[in-house]
Amino acid sequence: MARLVQKYGGSSVTDAESVQRVARRIVDTHRAGHEVAVVVSAMGDTTDDLLDLAARVSPTPAARELDMLLTAGERISMAVLAMAIHDLGVEARSYTGSQAGLITDSTHGRARIINVTPGRILAALDEGAVPIVAGFQGVSQDTKDITTLGRGGSDTTAVALAAALHADVCEIYTDVDGVFSADPRIVPVARRVPRITYEEMLDLAASGAKVLHLRCVEYARRFELPLHVRSSFTQQSGTVVATAEADIDLTSGKYGPPPEPYQPTTTGGSVMEQPIIAGVAHDLGDAKVTVVGVPDQVGEAATIFEAVAEAGINIDVIVQNVSAVATGRTDVTFTCPMAEGGAAMGALQRAHDVVGYEELRYDDQVGKVSLVGAGMRSNPGVSATFFRALADVGVNVEMISTSDIRISVIVRAEQVPDAVRAVHHAFGLDADGEAVVYAGTGR
Amino acid sequence: MARLVQKYGGSSVTDAESVQRVARRIVDTHRAGHEVAVVVSAMGDTTDDLLDLAARVSPTPAARELDMLLTAGERISMAVLAMAIHDLGVEARSYTGSQAGLITDSTHGRARIINVTPGRILAALDEGAVPIVAGFQGVSQDTKDITTLGRGGSDTTAVALAAALHADVCEIYTDVDGVFSADPRIVPVARRVPRITYEEMLDLAASGAKVLHLRCVEYARRFELPLHVRSSFTQQSGTVVATAEADIDLTSGKYGPPPEPYQPTTTGGSVMEQPIIAGVAHDLGDAKVTVVGVPDQVGEAATIFEAVAEAGINIDVIVQNVSAVATGRTDVTFTCPMAEGGAAMGALQRAHDVVGYEELRYDDQVGKVSLVGAGMRSNPGVSATFFRALADVGVNVEMISTSDIRISVIVRAEQVPDAVRAVHHAFGLDADGEAVVYAGTGR
Repeated sequence: MARLVQKYGGSSVTDAESVQRVARRIVDTHRAGHEVAVVVSAMGDTTDDLLDLAARVSPTPAARELDMLLTAGERISMAVLAMAIHDLGVEARSYTGSQAGLITDSTHGRARIINVTPGRILAALDEGAVPIVAGFQGVSQDTKDITTLGRGGSDTTAVALAAALHADVCEIYTDVDGVFSADPRIVPVARRVPRITYEEMLDLAASGAKVLHLRCVEYARRFELPLHVRSSFTQQSGTVVATAEADIDLTSGKYGPPPEPYQPTTTGGSVMEQPIIAGVAHDLGDAKVTVVGVPDQVGEAATIFEAVAEAGINIDVIVQNVSAVATGRTDVTFTCPMAEGGAAMGALQRAHDVVGYEELRYDDQVGKVSLVGAGMRSNPGVSATFFRALADVGVNVEMISTSDIRISVIVRAEQVPDAVRAVHHAFGLDADGEAVVYAGTGR
Repeated sequence: MARLVQKYGGSSVTDAESVQRVARRIVDTHRAGHEVAVVVSAMGDTTDDLLDLAARVSPTPAARELDMLLTAGERISMAVLAMAIHDLGVEARSYTGSQAGLITDSTHGRARIINVTPGRILAALDEGAVPIVAGFQGVSQDTKDITTLGRGGSDTTAVALAAALHADVCEIYTDVDGVFSADPRIVPVARRVPRITYEEMLDLAASGAKVLHLRCVEYARRFELPLHVRSSFTQQSGTVVATAEADIDLTSGKYGPPPEPYQPTTTGGSVMEQPIIAGVAHDLGDAKVTVVGVPDQVGEAATIFEAVAEAGINIDVIVQNVSAVATGRTDVTFTCPMAEGGAAMGALQRAHDVVGYEELRYDDQVGKVSLVGAGMRSNPGVSATFFRALADVGVNVEMISTSDIRISVIVRAEQVPDAVRAVHHAFGLDADGEAVVYAGTGR
């Protein structure tokens, strides 16, 4: 018998029928002898509908009230999911984030989890019931106000709850069959990655892979909690995110639902075969800002990035060209989320007199292509293969950024699909058949 | 300066525009110097939509989960209302029933309020903010689960909160201009009743008047809390429900919003002119059950009504005919809500051997017409005028029931409009113009 937390995203609960389908899956797991706690997101478009309503009422909704409003979404989904489980003969009880002990700070809209005190959830499990917990929400430690966790909030709720419950695994149910070696909408022959390390998953998520949020992976890594990314629409075996050393036999589909009980073996320790490359990620959400003609003096870069940081902008890739000796000036280029591009430009314009640059350039027709894999640490030929593949399909590289398990390049946005396919092919990642893709995205 | 609780029903907050209109009304009252706490129902059809969703998921939704689901409705309305008030420059904070200290028993779907501990609401008022409280909901004292209060729940929330806050008045905003001398849809010349006692209002509500629920009036009477029923669509002065002795100058429209501050004068005590008749109410929701040929023995009636009571049926009017000497048998007739008619018949059929009646008859083509007024206590001609008015328009009276401030008759359903109009006219209640009526009903 295992203790599991199952998280179902909004794309898994879009209407009454899909709620009933999810309920059957939960009941199957419960009846297989496991302890199951469930975290659920708001149904389908509920959150967008609530945001629309808020926008019609108020141009700038008060943050505390927006959190109160949005948490109505999970309240609806968790209550109907509990009803559907009840109808299958299993006791289920829904709990708000506050009732489930999700204690956060007071930062409305993007609260951080401070503590999880799941007393009522443990009591429900002890009584043989299935607790259904609202994702995405908590209660402020100081003000006792309702908070939301922001992007990736429901995944983070699930991981935090699983850690607090000392669960064996946290299953993240979504509308795709797991983590893929590239976005199957761009690379039809992308293959499912059966297993991946936290580090690789972090780099994939940071590089634009949407299936898991960075934050929930970070949380899972800190607690060494195995994640299992699966589709709620199929019985495919999905992707396990864990340490390379963890001996978890999930990939064979040996645990429910519905086949046989999940048996984590803590002895043994057969280290899996680690492929060189986990996958190719891409991201079309960034913009490129170039500060032209910056005096090549100590502290100039610091001045630039202080100005941008004060405006709350998240910077991704940075490149500083070699200074031209004749002018004593250099160019500094960085990328940031497209939504923050205007604010970044504004901050730099205000900082003109301090920085003393000649010109600002803004370009949102860029995309990022990243190759991620722990195996590249010990494979010196990876970079060469990567850049050769891009060159062969005529893709010009504008910026480069690397970590020890990732290479990222900034290229023209319209060349991103070609670049992803070329790199995917060059590293032998293409599968024989086409990947199965389902529409919709979760929260 | 006064302390007010304002309650807005679902028909007052149907969309973004009406939320903004209600917000302006609240802000006007606040800016006039009053302390305002607000209770709000779910927006428009939200509750019905949530019930539809529950019905699609589950044929018999678990009661605990149905409460969790339905309370999402007020969560939405109170959050957007707080946003709209914020936008007008006034601090507003929404609170769930649980946060506002609405402590109930554990009877899901129709919980009773046990206690109100409005610490956070008082703190908000002290800080000059406008607290917005979710109507219709509370938290169970024993299980800490979310509960709903059932029919009339939001009105009851408002009255209970007002009593706990020692408010000067509880304003019930709805889609009509107050309590009318008859339903203006049936009697176009019905007139607004400027002031009415708790007892009269209780009898009107029990007789079918929909504007206030029995339960909230009972609560207000217990605490001698003045109620002010008003339209959120107009600036009409509405109806004050209070003791006959209370000296409250609300009817002149002398208090906000938006005119001048509300000044309850506790000295003075000018007793108002009490009209003989408060109004004519009608109810088409009852059915008539006749138990024919009951042995005329001590305890037979008790046996009948025990059987019905065990099935949880609420009985209204009861009539027992004089026994026919020849047979030693009598007929017992009662009315009950149409929705419970089938259950009443079933209970009586099961009790046939115990009661020993000859036949059961069921009739749902009946209606009740009631005349209510504290003045009829000292006016002996009231009954005569009432029955003469009915006879003159050819209405046959099937059952009669009276209290010291009410006369009710059961008549054919299709004759109810004629009966109401005739009685309304006979007591000189007709106004000169037509009443203004707005569509929709609140919860």
